[in-house]
Amino acid sequence: MIKDLIIKNRGYRQFYEDYPISQNTLRELVELARFSASTANLQPLKYILSCEPEKNERIFPHTHWAGYIKNWVGPRKGEKPSAYIIILEDMEIRDSFGCDHGIVAQSILLGATEKGLGGCMIGSINQEVLRKALRIPDRYKILLTLALGKPREKVVIETMGKDGDIKYWRDEDDVHHVPKRPLDEIILEV
Amino acid sequence: MIKDLIIKNRGYRQFYEDYPISQNTLRELVELARFSASTANLQPLKYILSCEPEKNERIFPHTHWAGYIKNWVGPRKGEKPSAYIIILEDMEIRDSFGCDHGIVAQSILLGATEKGLGGCMIGSINQEVLRKALRIPDRYKILLTLALGKPREKVVIETMGKDGDIKYWRDEDDVHHVPKRPLDEIILEV
Repeated sequence: MIKDLIIKNRGYRQFYEDYPISQNTLRELVELARFSASTANLQPLKYILSCEPEKNERIFPHTHWAGYIKNWVGPRKGEKPSAYIIILEDMEIRDSFGCDHGIVAQSILLGATEKGLGGCMIGSINQEVLRKALRIPDRYKILLTLALGKPREKVVIETMGKDGDIKYWRDEDDVHHVPKRPLDEIILEV
Repeated sequence: MIKDLIIKNRGYRQFYEDYPISQNTLRELVELARFSASTANLQPLKYILSCEPEKNERIFPHTHWAGYIKNWVGPRKGEKPSAYIIILEDMEIRDSFGCDHGIVAQSILLGATEKGLGGCMIGSINQEVLRKALRIPDRYKILLTLALGKPREKVVIETMGKDGDIKYWRDEDDVHHVPKRPLDEIILEV
């Protein structure tokens, strides 16, 4: 059931760093993106794959993690992602940004979840520094970085409380709680 | 397999208009959106549901269809969508647009595909006229309209030819062909 997969596909931020993800697995995930919808079928998105520790280390320092969790700046050594897919827009194909990157990011992460992996969509990226670190030509705009790995944390969805606070939080057992707005609040009666 | 579902989930534009889609089905699809990722977990998206012929008729005239197909302005009577989910951004929660609407649109359409339905993400919308037709308050920005129904057309993916033409096209048997860029073209070696 797609519902089970969507629920299982949470934002994971701690991984078994030693768990290898192959280049072939990343290519299979990009294939899912390739089969996904694109505005006017232009398909302006390109993908940089990384699954080697050395290349991963060039990406990791330029990603920002879980802004709401105080005193936690991101996964520690041993808990870092073992792969990345960086989503770029090829400005020679289109220079305005729709929501294609959201569509493909969801396809990729659902595919990763099915494979027993998990990940996190990271939009908070130090653009120009990452561009330099990977020597990404100017024609590509960096839209989103997907961090991937074998999750080593528990993430649970709960319904947002009456206080309206949507900040995710971690309990004393390191379980990550994600408050979601109730269904009736997000359906608009007109 | 998620791959099968993603491949089956094509942009459909002709439907069995008499095939009913219930309010409850639409709510189940929005539930999939609710469980999907949201930037900083803000969840600014709201949803308008429509599955009654009268309400559908207020939406349909303000959607634009399949720009590449000449001499075809959209589905005819009897082929129109039997439901819509309109995705809005609640500007009181966030007034900048990330890719949340792409993420949830993919979740919703994969859910619809699993239910034997299909649909189309329509970004080309006559915003202000649709706003008036449905009396949508100004605080909501219309991001995307998902047209839904029981597909009555065949849509096939093929690999883009060497001419680089990505325009979808219809053959004499009314089969809709969608050229996708080859995998090796969309993976960027850096």
